[in-house]
Amino acid sequence: MEGHVFLIQLVLILFSARVMGEVAAYFQAPSVIGELLAGIIIGPSLLNIVQLSDPVVLLAQVGIILLLFEVGLEADIGRLVSAGSKAAIVAVCGVVFPFALGFAVSYALFDLSLLTSLFIGSTLTATSIGITLRVLHDLKQQGSPEAQVILGAAVLDDIIGIVFLAVLYEFATSGSVHAWNAGRVLLFIALFFLLAPIAAKLISKSIKKWDENSTIPGLLPTMIVSLILLFAWVAYSLGAPELLGGFAAGLALSRQFKLPVGTWLNDSKEFVQRVEKQMRPIVHLFTPIFFVSIGLSLNLREIDWSSGTIWLLSGSLIVVAVLGKLLSGFCLFKESRFVQTAIGVAMIPRGEVGLIFAGVGLATKVFDESLYAALIIVIAVTTLVPPFFLRMLYAKK
Amino acid sequence: MEGHVFLIQLVLILFSARVMGEVAAYFQAPSVIGELLAGIIIGPSLLNIVQLSDPVVLLAQVGIILLLFEVGLEADIGRLVSAGSKAAIVAVCGVVFPFALGFAVSYALFDLSLLTSLFIGSTLTATSIGITLRVLHDLKQQGSPEAQVILGAAVLDDIIGIVFLAVLYEFATSGSVHAWNAGRVLLFIALFFLLAPIAAKLISKSIKKWDENSTIPGLLPTMIVSLILLFAWVAYSLGAPELLGGFAAGLALSRQFKLPVGTWLNDSKEFVQRVEKQMRPIVHLFTPIFFVSIGLSLNLREIDWSSGTIWLLSGSLIVVAVLGKLLSGFCLFKESRFVQTAIGVAMIPRGEVGLIFAGVGLATKVFDESLYAALIIVIAVTTLVPPFFLRMLYAKK
Repeated sequence: MEGHVFLIQLVLILFSARVMGEVAAYFQAPSVIGELLAGIIIGPSLLNIVQLSDPVVLLAQVGIILLLFEVGLEADIGRLVSAGSKAAIVAVCGVVFPFALGFAVSYALFDLSLLTSLFIGSTLTATSIGITLRVLHDLKQQGSPEAQVILGAAVLDDIIGIVFLAVLYEFATSGSVHAWNAGRVLLFIALFFLLAPIAAKLISKSIKKWDENSTIPGLLPTMIVSLILLFAWVAYSLGAPELLGGFAAGLALSRQFKLPVGTWLNDSKEFVQRVEKQMRPIVHLFTPIFFVSIGLSLNLREIDWSSGTIWLLSGSLIVVAVLGKLLSGFCLFKESRFVQTAIGVAMIPRGEVGLIFAGVGLATKVFDESLYAALIIVIAVTTLVPPFFLRMLYAKK
Repeated sequence: MEGHVFLIQLVLILFSARVMGEVAAYFQAPSVIGELLAGIIIGPSLLNIVQLSDPVVLLAQVGIILLLFEVGLEADIGRLVSAGSKAAIVAVCGVVFPFALGFAVSYALFDLSLLTSLFIGSTLTATSIGITLRVLHDLKQQGSPEAQVILGAAVLDDIIGIVFLAVLYEFATSGSVHAWNAGRVLLFIALFFLLAPIAAKLISKSIKKWDENSTIPGLLPTMIVSLILLFAWVAYSLGAPELLGGFAAGLALSRQFKLPVGTWLNDSKEFVQRVEKQMRPIVHLFTPIFFVSIGLSLNLREIDWSSGTIWLLSGSLIVVAVLGKLLSGFCLFKESRFVQTAIGVAMIPRGEVGLIFAGVGLATKVFDESLYAALIIVIAVTTLVPPFFLRMLYAKK
């Protein structure tokens, strides 16, 4: 891409994100909805003045990794751990229900092939951490107990989703599945989450020491971003989603995170605050690029709006997608109706993960164009609508 | 490019820049030298683990634009204007001497064609603003009176360089030159510098007002970056170098910049400080990418080190390139020897502008491979060596 085209595209992305974010806020909607709509408006769906290009996709990827870093940094580890069992229940329910229902509807009702039905079921499993968290953040609910359950469940269900994708991809391309491959991915991810925080602590300690002795300004932004992106790369190399690397780095640097061994490793409050302060403008700059890019990647013109089967299929799958995740909240029997509903609704957005699944399905020819279009509708609806309900829910409370 | 490759490349660029920057500082050299060397080390010249890819080039471009924004923001307009006539003298001398000498040496001594000799002369004209300013910044001399002359001269000589390039490019591709084209470029640039600060002031006023009423965080980093990149795009569209757009935006927002008409337009000190504070981590993150990318773009392996003519040609051109710019400082008859020398030395680095010229020369087949290699040597030497002399000069003072 030519330099000046990239410049004006970045300007259009950042500017439209801000304008639409403010418009959304004015109408009491979460601002992330505005940013998604900005992408739909300037993208191929409507004005078609910005197309999703390689460099924008890469910056968007950095954006979601940095967002997860900030989420990790602000996360309350104590609560996250104590929410662990609840999060696991929600994650498992939130994978099993949409997968089973999605598979059943596709296979039994729409007579699709086994592999296609399995792929559709998988596409409906993974919650978009990014969108869910931004909504909770917009509602200033990121510190609530249910937010910790949602965060934990979204992370777990991303991991399960990746394992599903690995297995299905192998099945789609080679026709058979080795249990070992799925196991290995899980093992690596577990190892990563065990070792990453310790490594990040050690590295951040060195950065702090380095920062105290450096005579050249600008050490913190470059080195903290390097640390985050390095962890994202390691996560990817081990088979985990890249954004989990950002999350792990954030968790490790967060003030609440203390290692049981070696208290000398724990960062001073002052250092963490400086990291937060220097990182905030960078995170704010990159994250809108991610949300706009989701809007850009949805081409609503691709959809043959006159086709009856698409409406029928996508309609059924929307019901399945919403119901499956909503039920996951109710797997926590002992919680109040409010908490059950809030968790269930917050788990509904599929966003980028669903798009990745649908994209892989299209690329491996498991989905044809119209099936892909139907799934795009499902992803668009499940991504755009729940934030409104969540806001209403919290407003009522 | 695949996402994870981009992530690890960014990590390598940022990390090597920091390490080599610190090493350079340890050896009393400007840290920018370390960043350039970092690019040479990890790039095709040595380890070849990072290649200059499209996305990295685009981020580097954003880096130099943001750096010029910061330079503009910190510039003392009063001094810059009063340094105007001196800067113009240095710029004109610094274009005429290297161009005339470079042309004469190529045409008369090395028997090269007229067009090739003109192109070589032009390649030697434009100073690299980025490198020169970083060095002055590293030496904490960015506020000195001679720094204002250097800044002004470097900006002017970039403009002259662009006009040269436009004329020669037309000549190389069509075989004739229309004076109107060169005049139009100059006119547009003049218009841009007249209108840009007023426009930027108006926009920054709106941003400030918007910021006061916004309920969503992160307005300043996204909107200020948008403003800067928009101006860079406008500059490009008018035929000026993109980085001048960043510079104009920075100048307009700087505290010292006051419009004679309408004092209500002038930004409050508090607002400018907030902008500076939020932009600093972003500028610090992007600028090393630019300097490392220059190192990455120099492939020292391309050079046939055994060829005698290359050494002879590049040796002569280095002498011409150094002498031509050094003399430009001495065009200011009334200044002290120290100021004359400091200005002359500071104007020597050619960096990215020279590389662009050489690249265009290679692309239009005006240069063959060995001529291109000779120019790469010239650019490498003129970029890497002067910062040391400048440091010695200021240390002696």
